[in-house]
Amino acid sequence: MEGIIGSEKMIKNRGRLFALPLTALLFLFCGFREQTLQAGENFGMVLHGGAGAIRKGSMTGELESRYRAKLTQALQNGYDILKKGGSSLDAVTGALVILEDSPLFNAGKGAVFTNTGSNELDASIMEGRTLQAGAVAGVKTVKNPILLARKVMESSPHVLLSGDGADSFARDQGLEIVDPGYFYTEKRWKDLQKARARETGNDSEAPLEKEKKHGTVGAAALDRKGNLAAGTSTGGMTNKRFGRIGDSPLIGAGTYADNDTCAISATGHGEYFIRAVVAHDISALMQYKGLSLQEAARKVILDKLTAMGGTGGIVAIDKDGNVAMPFNTEGMYRGWVDRKGKITVKIYRKD
Amino acid sequence: MEGIIGSEKMIKNRGRLFALPLTALLFLFCGFREQTLQAGENFGMVLHGGAGAIRKGSMTGELESRYRAKLTQALQNGYDILKKGGSSLDAVTGALVILEDSPLFNAGKGAVFTNTGSNELDASIMEGRTLQAGAVAGVKTVKNPILLARKVMESSPHVLLSGDGADSFARDQGLEIVDPGYFYTEKRWKDLQKARARETGNDSEAPLEKEKKHGTVGAAALDRKGNLAAGTSTGGMTNKRFGRIGDSPLIGAGTYADNDTCAISATGHGEYFIRAVVAHDISALMQYKGLSLQEAARKVILDKLTAMGGTGGIVAIDKDGNVAMPFNTEGMYRGWVDRKGKITVKIYRKD
Repeated sequence: MEGIIGSEKMIKNRGRLFALPLTALLFLFCGFREQTLQAGENFGMVLHGGAGAIRKGSMTGELESRYRAKLTQALQNGYDILKKGGSSLDAVTGALVILEDSPLFNAGKGAVFTNTGSNELDASIMEGRTLQAGAVAGVKTVKNPILLARKVMESSPHVLLSGDGADSFARDQGLEIVDPGYFYTEKRWKDLQKARARETGNDSEAPLEKEKKHGTVGAAALDRKGNLAAGTSTGGMTNKRFGRIGDSPLIGAGTYADNDTCAISATGHGEYFIRAVVAHDISALMQYKGLSLQEAARKVILDKLTAMGGTGGIVAIDKDGNVAMPFNTEGMYRGWVDRKGKITVKIYRKD
Repeated sequence: MEGIIGSEKMIKNRGRLFALPLTALLFLFCGFREQTLQAGENFGMVLHGGAGAIRKGSMTGELESRYRAKLTQALQNGYDILKKGGSSLDAVTGALVILEDSPLFNAGKGAVFTNTGSNELDASIMEGRTLQAGAVAGVKTVKNPILLARKVMESSPHVLLSGDGADSFARDQGLEIVDPGYFYTEKRWKDLQKARARETGNDSEAPLEKEKKHGTVGAAALDRKGNLAAGTSTGGMTNKRFGRIGDSPLIGAGTYADNDTCAISATGHGEYFIRAVVAHDISALMQYKGLSLQEAARKVILDKLTAMGGTGGIVAIDKDGNVAMPFNTEGMYRGWVDRKGKITVKIYRKD
């Protein structure tokens, strides 16, 4: 189960005993310092690049290296911001822009195609100090939807904007606008053709379920002031239609942050995450039932969501810097960085 | 505070003592029957037609009568369905269709106009037995958005559809489609002109805040099988732009139902309801902290939401048939019906 749950309290791990008396003395001093960390003095970040049927056998070593490198780069960027005293909001957006700009993930540049061959992007962000939030659904021309979600939070009276209106708001705010062709990648286009072929029965390949890789990206961070923030960005489902909106732009489902509890970003089969109000439910279990982040996150993902038939996972960090990364799929691109700058990246269940 | 909170346990009230020994005997028999009501044997419904600056002085007697009559008609419809053993889902949709078809409320026929002079409707529905849910945002041609939300729940793999895609799904499903002109009402058109005039500074009338009436409609019901359901429908905010989506179509914010706790529909300043994940928070307080429906609903609306600066209210019914209707505005169109068919309708805080 270790791999499924992710390691908690890794940020709080203590120094190790050394053989020499001097280092032992040093340890005692350092250990004491760590034990007396004030709330807010700790910091760190956790992120994901999607959960799904990610198996070691179905990935080349070269591709795996690219995923690990990109996740590491995003974590390093978030860490640099947090270390300098930057806000958790800045760390989350900084890291997610890097993942959005990569074709590896189903967000920003690498977004999947809808049924009509367009790319419709969703994103959301929330800060735990004020419970302020911003989100966008179905935008088509914004290079970095996570930055637009933040603009909605900070520069509009609204929380959720959608469709052409959201694109129009992005232009008003001076965000970087791209031609829809920017989102074309050969791999995603082929994915759409495959999905269409499956629908018309001209493809006898593995069923859709087995091919599902939810490449949504998300991050959650705790800054040195004790403020939590979380954000999520996605291109949705390949071949989606009817203006389907998943959990990623929905506060409480795909994203949630509250300084009293934790910050969370989800990835997976969105409909189940909406119905289970996954992100808020984890926070509520901590706040109202006194569960730890790990207990709450495991209960919601491994018990409740799994019992409903939902697949996916979350990454979360609590107000003390503990992290949790439960998922019930074969893999989840994930990683975290602690206050010492130690970066860990994992992909498979047993990783 | 009585008027603010609504009366709880009114559905559970017992028979009264009569003078004659025979009736006393009958009472004892009936009283015993009532005391041994099994879970699920009780039933009832609660609904709202929006909360806001609704003052006795600003309403004609004739208009007030029309509101009371329409709310009563909707409650009677829901009751008739529940009494015959119909489902809470049918009661909720049956009642809400009546309110959507009335020009009195900001939903369906009486929807307000967006900034561009269009009508964009949102709705959602959820059933507590399966935690299934359906919702639509920004539909323009569907006569009864609550019926479309139900179709999304029952006939699609999705939870939330938006914009043209949602209208297209409605046509596929054979729902009643209307010309956008159907939603024209003189009053709502004038409201838009006033809002536009205020923006350009050509109107020195009362500021927007005072004119705000949130005419969203919603209902929550418990049926004889012990199943809960809730639904919400709205035309959004007058003069809204940028494809703004409020809390009404968002599961956990504007609508939530869980057979283990309660069913809830919200109305008010949607952005605050999204950030506070109002409907799910009430359910979580009952489930994880053991609060009664009334305690949980009051805590979320009168304490938490109010402290954030949010205005509005909710109606809710729990798995035992208790109801709660807290709101922090001057009034809320609201009413409930108990298992005996007794209908109560209220509008103002002191009503």
